[in-house]
Amino acid sequence: MNTFNVGLIGMGTVGAGVAKILLEKGSPLLEKLDCVPVLKGIADRNPDVKNKLNLPSDILFTTDAKELLNNPDIQVVVELIGGLHPAMEIITTALEKGKDVVTANKMLLALHGSELFSKARRHGKSISFEASVGGGIPIIAALRDGFIANKIEAIFGIVNGTTNYILTKMTREKVKYSDALAEAQRLGYAEKDPTMDVEGIDSSHKLAILARIGFGVDFDYKNIYHEGISAMDLSDIWYAHELGYTLKLLAIAKKTENNIELRVHPTLLPHDHPLSSVNGVFNAICITGSAVGETMLYGKGAGQMPTASAVVADLVDVALGRAGITFKAMKTFSGHCEYVPIADIQQFKTRYYLRFSVVDKPGVLAKISGILGKYEISIASVIQHKARENGTVPLVMMTHLAEEGNLQKALTEMKQLDVIKDHTKFLRVEE
Amino acid sequence: MNTFNVGLIGMGTVGAGVAKILLEKGSPLLEKLDCVPVLKGIADRNPDVKNKLNLPSDILFTTDAKELLNNPDIQVVVELIGGLHPAMEIITTALEKGKDVVTANKMLLALHGSELFSKARRHGKSISFEASVGGGIPIIAALRDGFIANKIEAIFGIVNGTTNYILTKMTREKVKYSDALAEAQRLGYAEKDPTMDVEGIDSSHKLAILARIGFGVDFDYKNIYHEGISAMDLSDIWYAHELGYTLKLLAIAKKTENNIELRVHPTLLPHDHPLSSVNGVFNAICITGSAVGETMLYGKGAGQMPTASAVVADLVDVALGRAGITFKAMKTFSGHCEYVPIADIQQFKTRYYLRFSVVDKPGVLAKISGILGKYEISIASVIQHKARENGTVPLVMMTHLAEEGNLQKALTEMKQLDVIKDHTKFLRVEE
Repeated sequence: MNTFNVGLIGMGTVGAGVAKILLEKGSPLLEKLDCVPVLKGIADRNPDVKNKLNLPSDILFTTDAKELLNNPDIQVVVELIGGLHPAMEIITTALEKGKDVVTANKMLLALHGSELFSKARRHGKSISFEASVGGGIPIIAALRDGFIANKIEAIFGIVNGTTNYILTKMTREKVKYSDALAEAQRLGYAEKDPTMDVEGIDSSHKLAILARIGFGVDFDYKNIYHEGISAMDLSDIWYAHELGYTLKLLAIAKKTENNIELRVHPTLLPHDHPLSSVNGVFNAICITGSAVGETMLYGKGAGQMPTASAVVADLVDVALGRAGITFKAMKTFSGHCEYVPIADIQQFKTRYYLRFSVVDKPGVLAKISGILGKYEISIASVIQHKARENGTVPLVMMTHLAEEGNLQKALTEMKQLDVIKDHTKFLRVEE
Repeated sequence: MNTFNVGLIGMGTVGAGVAKILLEKGSPLLEKLDCVPVLKGIADRNPDVKNKLNLPSDILFTTDAKELLNNPDIQVVVELIGGLHPAMEIITTALEKGKDVVTANKMLLALHGSELFSKARRHGKSISFEASVGGGIPIIAALRDGFIANKIEAIFGIVNGTTNYILTKMTREKVKYSDALAEAQRLGYAEKDPTMDVEGIDSSHKLAILARIGFGVDFDYKNIYHEGISAMDLSDIWYAHELGYTLKLLAIAKKTENNIELRVHPTLLPHDHPLSSVNGVFNAICITGSAVGETMLYGKGAGQMPTASAVVADLVDVALGRAGITFKAMKTFSGHCEYVPIADIQQFKTRYYLRFSVVDKPGVLAKISGILGKYEISIASVIQHKARENGTVPLVMMTHLAEEGNLQKALTEMKQLDVIKDHTKFLRVEE
């Protein structure tokens, strides 16, 4: 039996999971492989980690990642520290030293993927990153290999478990955002500073990775529109629910003729849409391909063992030599790709949910619908709720297909109307 | 750009789809590969196929598969004729002639997989079979590669689109079995002789393939329990629906300590189970892994282009050299595997739905529950419906966990009761 030596850098939750699988080799397929990934060394800045892990004595432990990077016995480096620095430098050095790389670092790949991929190609090494999106769901392999015969038309997904947990809790238990967030933090699903998750930034990183693979194009990450859930009102979730829609934070990629749509925002989905029943910390990604049609992959999008499952799958790919072939063949994240502009959010067309806080007197609907009509936004349905707050009533509307730019203009013009109080809320819809 | 020459044997619906993708190369990833699968020859017993296809002149067409098998330029043979013979001989010859094989033939793999895999290993060639289960869903790759770090605990799936279409139609439109089947046949979803699909045989073939990969063991295919949907009463679908359950034909594989459970039968699932909302010709497979937890893959399980999508993905794997590595590394379907007995259906434990046709008089429930109690079957809920047919009323029960053998004995004993008329129906439940 051949072995392939692994150096693990960053021994947090996921790192400990990876070590556990590599040391226990509990899987029947894993233990029968021709070439098995073997844990050789671990680096973590915290020296206490060594005692906590109860490592076998033949595994090198160091607080200095350089020790692993300089060790010629280590053939593949697993980067699990996250963030841009020093992850970037560690991966770069590993490649320069002739080591393959496995990473779960979505932020680094979204922002500097092309650079790192070019570097890996120059050194004849590979970067594997199944764990960067969807935790244990083999979404990268599916898009890149399983659906290779397809022109990918759309990728829709719930790719952030933290926000899905919060929205599920708000929807099911009628809990307001701040309380749901606090509970997520208590359970370890949300970080102390939840910004990356709740503002949709983490989702936009993952979307960038999926879109680069699925569409085989390059684009400017900065132009991905993202909007989080921190401003979500419980009442909108509930009015929309009554109208037959479930609220999810979606990452959406669509290929149009000349450009691509890439956006992350709270989105209303019909209750019977497969993504509507993806609850809690689960993730799911729908892919529409020209040959395969509609597909969905579902599973735990984060957490120790699901993510470790994906990291170890990558390590097996590297050990068997498949990762190198795949990386060489996959002409994404590189100069080989056509650069495509991301469509401006103003040009997006969707249906909208609108909630106005209006003064309850005759003529209000006429004024609002007049302005909407002026901007070619037609109304599909209207519900006036009785719930009265501070002298206003909520007026909820669903529109037909409309252009975002027109909606923005209409909403700006409506600010002049004295019958509208407070901020008007709107949500985008996908069918 | 390197090319890898493909010979396609069997030019039915799926074959035409494969040809279309290989000739059009519409996918951005496919067209940028280092080594591209190129359609070199087609064999079909029907000479008319040639004209129908409108093939480019440089593609060899023959009515004799041997011509492709003997052609040294052809490096990979795609077997798409289905059935046991001559598919078996074609694959065997292709391997002997030093060609790799791609097939969608689930029956052949279920019955003679180990034999064919040993043959391929002896000749240093590979057999790829992503299209054999779940159409375009990359389920084989997910189980074999994506979840390799896992001990697979359970595989549950809707793997037959024909029966799922029929059950969906019966459930949604309250149409009886024979009418739903006729509609499926009219739409081309069911064959003229639907036996393989409706009796659960096709599902058991697919289950055998999934279980061999997932559990990494070998077993006797003949011992897989299978039961189809041809005897399904619409009334049971509806009584169960009222109780909160959806009826699906499931293929179920579970690993227990000393053996495995492998069974195909109509199964009741709670409405909120992810498989309950898989409708029409869609397939979905849930996999529970020790690290990854619960996952589900969903998509079109059959049809021209979804299946062709999987075949072409396999061809790319072969062309790039990944298929050979994977096939060599994957110690399933072979003498390398532990042989494990399939648990006898009598030992299975599930909850049951029971429907008795009883005479409407006092003491009936006491008699029935007495016999159930004698065999350690306890009742979770009872509904007596008012609907009266031929002087009897339906008595519907849900049991707690019970052993199938005990249930069978109880039902046999109840045949002596004069208060029970007709055949007693029962359905197994999964949560």
